[in-house]
Amino acid sequence: MSAYEALKESFHRIACLDEAGAMLSWDASAMMPEGGADARGEQMAVLAGLSHEFLCAPEMGEKLTQAHTEAGWDSENLTLMKEAHLRATALPRDLVEAQVRAARACETIWRAARRNSDFDAVRDVLAEVVRLTREGAEILGQALGLSPYDALMSQYQRGISAAEASAIFARYEAFLCEALPQAEALQTGRKQVALPPGPYPEAVQAELARALAAGAGLNFNAARLDISTHPFCGGTPTDIRITTRYDEADFCAALMGVLHETGHALYEQNLPAAWRRQPVGAAAGMAMHESQSLIVEMQAVRSDAYLSYLAPLASSSFGKEITPAALKHRLRRVERSFIRVEADEMTYPAHVLLRFRLEQALLSGGLAVADLPGAWNEGFKSLLGITPPDDARGCLQDIHWFDGAIGYFPSYTLGAMAAAQLMEAARKALPDLDGALAQGDLSPLITWLSAHVHERGASAGFNEILRAATGEALNPAYFEAHLTARYLS
Amino acid sequence: MSAYEALKESFHRIACLDEAGAMLSWDASAMMPEGGADARGEQMAVLAGLSHEFLCAPEMGEKLTQAHTEAGWDSENLTLMKEAHLRATALPRDLVEAQVRAARACETIWRAARRNSDFDAVRDVLAEVVRLTREGAEILGQALGLSPYDALMSQYQRGISAAEASAIFARYEAFLCEALPQAEALQTGRKQVALPPGPYPEAVQAELARALAAGAGLNFNAARLDISTHPFCGGTPTDIRITTRYDEADFCAALMGVLHETGHALYEQNLPAAWRRQPVGAAAGMAMHESQSLIVEMQAVRSDAYLSYLAPLASSSFGKEITPAALKHRLRRVERSFIRVEADEMTYPAHVLLRFRLEQALLSGGLAVADLPGAWNEGFKSLLGITPPDDARGCLQDIHWFDGAIGYFPSYTLGAMAAAQLMEAARKALPDLDGALAQGDLSPLITWLSAHVHERGASAGFNEILRAATGEALNPAYFEAHLTARYLS
Repeated sequence: MSAYEALKESFHRIACLDEAGAMLSWDASAMMPEGGADARGEQMAVLAGLSHEFLCAPEMGEKLTQAHTEAGWDSENLTLMKEAHLRATALPRDLVEAQVRAARACETIWRAARRNSDFDAVRDVLAEVVRLTREGAEILGQALGLSPYDALMSQYQRGISAAEASAIFARYEAFLCEALPQAEALQTGRKQVALPPGPYPEAVQAELARALAAGAGLNFNAARLDISTHPFCGGTPTDIRITTRYDEADFCAALMGVLHETGHALYEQNLPAAWRRQPVGAAAGMAMHESQSLIVEMQAVRSDAYLSYLAPLASSSFGKEITPAALKHRLRRVERSFIRVEADEMTYPAHVLLRFRLEQALLSGGLAVADLPGAWNEGFKSLLGITPPDDARGCLQDIHWFDGAIGYFPSYTLGAMAAAQLMEAARKALPDLDGALAQGDLSPLITWLSAHVHERGASAGFNEILRAATGEALNPAYFEAHLTARYLS
Repeated sequence: MSAYEALKESFHRIACLDEAGAMLSWDASAMMPEGGADARGEQMAVLAGLSHEFLCAPEMGEKLTQAHTEAGWDSENLTLMKEAHLRATALPRDLVEAQVRAARACETIWRAARRNSDFDAVRDVLAEVVRLTREGAEILGQALGLSPYDALMSQYQRGISAAEASAIFARYEAFLCEALPQAEALQTGRKQVALPPGPYPEAVQAELARALAAGAGLNFNAARLDISTHPFCGGTPTDIRITTRYDEADFCAALMGVLHETGHALYEQNLPAAWRRQPVGAAAGMAMHESQSLIVEMQAVRSDAYLSYLAPLASSSFGKEITPAALKHRLRRVERSFIRVEADEMTYPAHVLLRFRLEQALLSGGLAVADLPGAWNEGFKSLLGITPPDDARGCLQDIHWFDGAIGYFPSYTLGAMAAAQLMEAARKALPDLDGALAQGDLSPLITWLSAHVHERGASAGFNEILRAATGEALNPAYFEAHLTARYLS
């Protein structure tokens, strides 16, 4: 067996362990009784530990130096194997263990600190997390030939740099500064059309959500829809597990949540089967993943065309009169608010932009952890014109930093912008896209995405995939045009 | 770290992998969409492969020769570790692979052969499975100092030999020969009291089953009840997964099934937590496990006392008049029949006895595979007086042999007999056991079983546990007395 073939076998085995971990993780969120938590933690630690051990194995290092491939997917696969091994081995074991310990301690304290809006309680442990993250990022950056922040960011999404994201986000800030007040003014002048009051029975919501997900292309012969506190898309490409939660007073949250996760699920289901369990056969990154959930949820489903399909369907499902106008009123509103996960698509990037800037400053040391609440509130005021009344609605709201995740936030907005850009390209390629959406038919869109994004796996980076699919690297103009059309006309 | 401590760590890791496999296996039966089957097969193969690799590791062999312990549980644990390692390493790799291949091929062909009642179709592959099983059993027997059949039987249940089981089963045959006609005659003379016709809604059955399982002591904070085609008890001690299937025409099958699995579940939940993931902390074997399911289902739940509690409860759940007499008529009938899994408690041992004799003859070579259908039908006629009309209802009905499992069948009846013996001992220790059962309260029984069986883990073999709990090794007189009291009075 060639060195490269042996590596493929090793990565196949690692992927199987990771898949087992993914199923156990889904189970822990959707099925497991409370009493199983400790045992599950140990099971998952053993799986993750073995996966890491195999990735770090010295024999893998040897094989990676011996292996040769033809150009093309194998070559890209080998590159990704090398990077995975490098990332897994670059950090000293002591540092990794200190990072895990610090993040665990910090996250625990953060839960109470957020509840009590008490930043001081978590300040010192967060400072330790940031310090250890910085130490790791410097080592990783040197190993990978990247800046420390890029070394972190690229573990979530390769193929776009922090510098590129910065320029794009700065441009968006200028756009938002003008567009938001205009959108608000137009909205205020418009007639309010409320949805009828609930209850919207959970079982009916679930049935409708399942029908819409299937209509969007999700193959339930290889997927499940269940309930969890925090909705997510998990599982494996041939056995996708999406979750949602239901509120009987408001059916929209669950429906949009399911369609969002369906976008993620379709990406996974359409990954290149021939490269299953190889690095190059995985999704291209978190930003690209988010683009696929948002192109379904935000671009397709919240379009006029699709809502004109959804309204009568929801009316007959719930036995209430649900008009397209009421759906638009509920699903397409802009509003300055403090909590990122509740933000609308226009203001959401401001939340991300703030975090993106602050986390870079924290990592470089330009911002001390002690000064974070002040910097947060000031930045928030400057972006959205309102000041968080407390840190719970400010810098304590997200788990990410307190859990040691720095470099992830930009993915959300890079994904939203890529979704708009891909939608525009799909629209050009598919002249009757709106006609299909008006029938609830996403298949032309998904077929196009599958060819231009899903089936490419991780064979290219973010901008490279966008360039091949749309003719250019990420360009925020498409997202701005989308928002302008939806909110300013 | 001492060699023994290192071994404990290794077995802990192996157990975590096995637990992950158990959860994935439950998921495959109760949750997984069909499309996930191939991927699941690979995930489970990787987990099982690693578990086996760790168990066979040469370093483990070295540590096992170095390790020393005090007498007691640690010593027993080390003995079980040595046996597990020996069993895993005794067979040449080629033989194991040939066994797996043959069993897989045979099982596939068997499915069609059973459907078509076509023994000839599976004859040659079964002969190959038997030949390879024999080869392995001879090697294992030499390594363990046991006869080939005992080497197989003891992997399911240690602490009772085939010779002991033979004597017990022969005695039962004589009992059955007299008791069965008597029971049938009494039954024929008795008034028929049918349960009211259904439907018994699935949701109501599930709620009642859950309540009864909880009443029997199952802690649903560490357990789930779901649906699967073949009911089973899986999962891990702090996260038990039991399954059943519902028939709206007949609520009794699901209820009894759930209570049977509850007996298995209680054993697992009450295993000694301090020895979790060590060989000595597992259940004592399959026969002992079956005794725990049957003491709940057959001894406790089908007793007059418990049925007097169940009848009004079921009546109010289903809104139909369900009398104790009708429950007894449904749940306590003897009947000569061809299918083992549908047999009543009196005739069930005849099904097992036949298989026990035939599988020993197959293994020794005294019976050729080609002669199996004839030997089956003759043996069946001699035991139960009826002749299977075809092989589907004869020697093709069970998966076991075709899947390479020889030596398992006796566990069912050893368990049924042990259940009767344990119940009698519990009754002596707990004078008001029937009073509690008449309140639906199994806790005195379960507390007693926990102390005398569950908490002993695998620290002793079958007869040793029975001796300590009841004062004697397995004695079929208790089972015969139970049947006499229930069916002949």
